[in-house]
Amino acid sequence: MSSNEINRQFRLAARPKGMVKESDLSYGESPVPIAGPGEVLIRTRYVSLDPSMRGQMENRADYVAPLQIGDVMRAGAAGEVIESNNPRFPIGTLVSGSFGMQDWCVSDGNNIPLRTFPPDIDPVTALGVLGGTGMTAYFGLLEIGQPRVGDVVVLSGAAGATGSIAGQIAKLKGCFVIGIAGSAEKCRWLIDDLGFDAAINYKAQNVGEELDRLCPNGINIYFDNVGGEILDTCLARIAMNARVVICGGISRYNTTGPIPGPRNYFNLVYRRARMEGFIVIDYARRFGEASREMKEWIDAGLIKHQATVVDGLRNLPKTLVQLFEGVNTGKLMVRVD
Amino acid sequence: MSSNEINRQFRLAARPKGMVKESDLSYGESPVPIAGPGEVLIRTRYVSLDPSMRGQMENRADYVAPLQIGDVMRAGAAGEVIESNNPRFPIGTLVSGSFGMQDWCVSDGNNIPLRTFPPDIDPVTALGVLGGTGMTAYFGLLEIGQPRVGDVVVLSGAAGATGSIAGQIAKLKGCFVIGIAGSAEKCRWLIDDLGFDAAINYKAQNVGEELDRLCPNGINIYFDNVGGEILDTCLARIAMNARVVICGGISRYNTTGPIPGPRNYFNLVYRRARMEGFIVIDYARRFGEASREMKEWIDAGLIKHQATVVDGLRNLPKTLVQLFEGVNTGKLMVRVD
Repeated sequence: MSSNEINRQFRLAARPKGMVKESDLSYGESPVPIAGPGEVLIRTRYVSLDPSMRGQMENRADYVAPLQIGDVMRAGAAGEVIESNNPRFPIGTLVSGSFGMQDWCVSDGNNIPLRTFPPDIDPVTALGVLGGTGMTAYFGLLEIGQPRVGDVVVLSGAAGATGSIAGQIAKLKGCFVIGIAGSAEKCRWLIDDLGFDAAINYKAQNVGEELDRLCPNGINIYFDNVGGEILDTCLARIAMNARVVICGGISRYNTTGPIPGPRNYFNLVYRRARMEGFIVIDYARRFGEASREMKEWIDAGLIKHQATVVDGLRNLPKTLVQLFEGVNTGKLMVRVD
Repeated sequence: MSSNEINRQFRLAARPKGMVKESDLSYGESPVPIAGPGEVLIRTRYVSLDPSMRGQMENRADYVAPLQIGDVMRAGAAGEVIESNNPRFPIGTLVSGSFGMQDWCVSDGNNIPLRTFPPDIDPVTALGVLGGTGMTAYFGLLEIGQPRVGDVVVLSGAAGATGSIAGQIAKLKGCFVIGIAGSAEKCRWLIDDLGFDAAINYKAQNVGEELDRLCPNGINIYFDNVGGEILDTCLARIAMNARVVICGGISRYNTTGPIPGPRNYFNLVYRRARMEGFIVIDYARRFGEASREMKEWIDAGLIKHQATVVDGLRNLPKTLVQLFEGVNTGKLMVRVD
């Protein structure tokens, strides 16, 4: 690194009200940090944009320490060790972790936990299908959803980074898989490229009517990334002993005022069903095992993944807004220039 | 039986709109039915009033065949075999089952399933703590709630037939038990007579503030009989890996128009928790085993139960309305004159 380099950063400028705005993040520059004893200096190459970032910009998300105004915006990222005072992470090691929206960060491997990945795995894969969203799909579907051969699995946000992988894992487990997504193009991608059995474009089709047609005997697993009306529509159609996996609620994240709850929750009684939430970091000790299995599926062509990559760190705020507008198919990332 | 006896009956006269009214049931008389081959004639002695009857008066309850207008109102009851063409149920056998709001019914033991009980168990016990509501408490708490020593268990409708038993079973399992009920008298009963650790009078106290004071580390099991605002208040306070047992939703049953869902459901994600419904008839094959264990607890003085008994079959409609007004402590029943 040259000593005249700077660390470009985006910091939390304001807690978002309603839809996230670019102005909720502020650009700034600071000196490149120095790796102290036991620490490494990491250069960020890719930054991941994820729906959970919306909650971290608020105070209410209690599953991770909330950000304070002025903090560097938290974000998953992949990068490379440039300087090292830690023998576990020699110079050149490829690492992923919560490096934030910035060019540089330092870590001792614990204060910001580091996962390493080999050079034959590209950073997009490391951050996506083998990263947080892929692990979320894996543990959410398999541990909370408990799929069985012949189950009808419905996923909302199906063309997103998590939904698209969870749906393919469900196919591998012998399920009948229906994706709900926001455009005809995304629906075609789910069916033609990923092998989903069916897809519903919620912006153009009546989700309830389509589900009645596609799975008249009801839904065994509903994997929810969106909440809101679609959650209610699916709760109305759960089968006996169904599992409703609450993975996310993107329709809630940018709303102001009180958000209605799922009025059809009482179907959990009539159908002897369960609705369960989870957070993927609880499974961190099993990420290695899950990544190996996922990698085998990828190498065998059984799991396909796609990323929308935007160039330029300065585009991070705009790209975050676009995430909530649903522009991406698969994983959304910014490549740091 | 004398041949000039009649069969007094209450039939469904109208589907209730909002609160159940006495006029939703109509009184009529018909001849005493005749026990055919393999059948027995049963005289009803006690009729049970249960919140689930509200759903059966509508068309939407899909867990049991809905009643049609003009049908005898369905109700759990205890009675005695008066005539028998079935060696499994000799004359004098005490039986419970869904005999309905009437003096007499016939059964072959299968079309209306019959449970027998010995003369040393009184009908009130057979219908209550060893009947449907007791079994609901037993399986709902133990199977769905999965209590562990030291768990904080909160129950709504705690002074009702199911809640009062479920709370005592939770105490037996080493839990810290908080009941929510609708009067100071009910709260005193829960603490002084049943051994609950605490009770909250939702009509006079702020439930959220009381819970914050009583269990600042959150709720491990919330056993819900009421739905509505109290469900939301408890969802806001669940602990990590909590189990929310949806047993009933009495606050919903007499409402008109759309009923809001639990807006705090997303706490299931933050707290990695589950919300699950069940229906006790799914456990029918284990009722014998559960009744034996419950009977041991009762005989040992570990489980106490109480019934509010109203005299006179003609009082059934009024008593049903009173159930939803919360007049009863423990089980509510009508003794047939």
